[in-house]
Amino acid sequence: VRRLTLSTDRREQMVDITDMVAAAAAELGDAAAVLVHVPHTTAAVTINEGYDPAVVDDVLGVLARLVPHDDGYRHLEGNSDSHAKAIMVGSTQLIPLDDGGLALGRWQRVFFCEFDGPRSRELWISPVSA
Amino acid sequence: VRRLTLSTDRREQMVDITDMVAAAAAELGDAAAVLVHVPHTTAAVTINEGYDPAVVDDVLGVLARLVPHDDGYRHLEGNSDSHAKAIMVGSTQLIPLDDGGLALGRWQRVFFCEFDGPRSRELWISPVSA
Amino acid sequence: VRRLTLSTDRREQMVDITDMVAAAAAELGDAAAVLVHVPHTTAAVTINEGYDPAVVDDVLGVLARLVPHDDGYRHLEGNSDSHAKAIMVGSTQLIPLDDGGLALGRWQRVFFCEFDGPRSRELWISPVSA
Repeated sequence: VRRLTLSTDRREQMVDITDMVAAAAAELGDAAAVLVHVPHTTAAVTINEGYDPAVVDDVLGVLARLVPHDDGYRHLEGNSDSHAKAIMVGSTQLIPLDDGGLALGRWQRVFFCEFDGPRSRELWISPVSA
Repeated sequence: VRRLTLSTDRREQMVDITDMVAAAAAELGDAAAVLVHVPHTTAAVTINEGYDPAVVDDVLGVLARLVPHDDGYRHLEGNSDSHAKAIMVGSTQLIPLDDGGLALGRWQRVFFCEFDGPRSRELWISPVSA
Repeated sequence: VRRLTLSTDRREQMVDITDMVAAAAAELGDAAAVLVHVPHTTAAVTINEGYDPAVVDDVLGVLARLVPHDDGYRHLEGNSDSHAKAIMVGSTQLIPLDDGGLALGRWQRVFFCEFDGPRSRELWISPVSA
């Protein structure tokens, strides 16, 4: 398991990590896929469009509307919304590789999803074989 | 990575692709699991009940209510709801194999989830070993 | 594929299965990751915080508010909400291994998510190699 780090600068943010994941994948050798694991409980990882930044803004807006920051939660840390969003998006992605490069569709980019930043975060990368 | 194609005929639709995935998996040789990747940003793949078609209708209804088609989004293409739904459902599934067949529960079927159709779509299949 | 069983005792419940998954993973030999598959269509598996039990209570509350039990669904079994929640959370998790142990973040635990209990349920575990 290779550990990468990144920093976020807003409470809710989708950071394009495609190049970072691709660089780590290129060093994995002859793998069939790369497992991207977010070792946190208030952040997630997803794959979606990166061309128009309005897309991820809209997605963060949808999630914020569906799961309000304050809503009479029992957890006293005040970030139950972050946990719920992390579960709805998911904490891992398994991305197929083709000749050592990420096999993604034309518009697909990989995003780290921060739901309780700003923070310093980790990303764990491991190879999976064919 | 094996590339399959399919066509959808409604804007929002869940298409049972179990047989198609099983046929592709049968040709993968001695794999432990099959990675099903949707290379699009407004479609997804999931596993759920296929016996009563009302189940997927209800699920599409829930998603449409939670993420309305028009809701003051910034992305001008008019399909931000499709992107959000794709993220909530997920663009990959890793399905275990048993003797070359999909190891699914009794009621489980694999569904391609179209959220911005009708369109011609791809499905990428790759083997993962034990 | 190794089949484990568990019982749930409420309609909606998140059961910490980390130790159970870790014990099964320890017997898998030299794998890179463990695939945890829930072979049901009204249950799911996720990774999130297990330290404060209020977190999973809040998450179940968010899901219950977003997808009400009764909402004019077409599926006559009366559990369309359970199917929708299972799809939103997901029926598999691929967890990286490090020296045979689950490579999880400090606050991460693995949860079986029951959305239509109480029931006797299965959990399928398979190794994936590096």
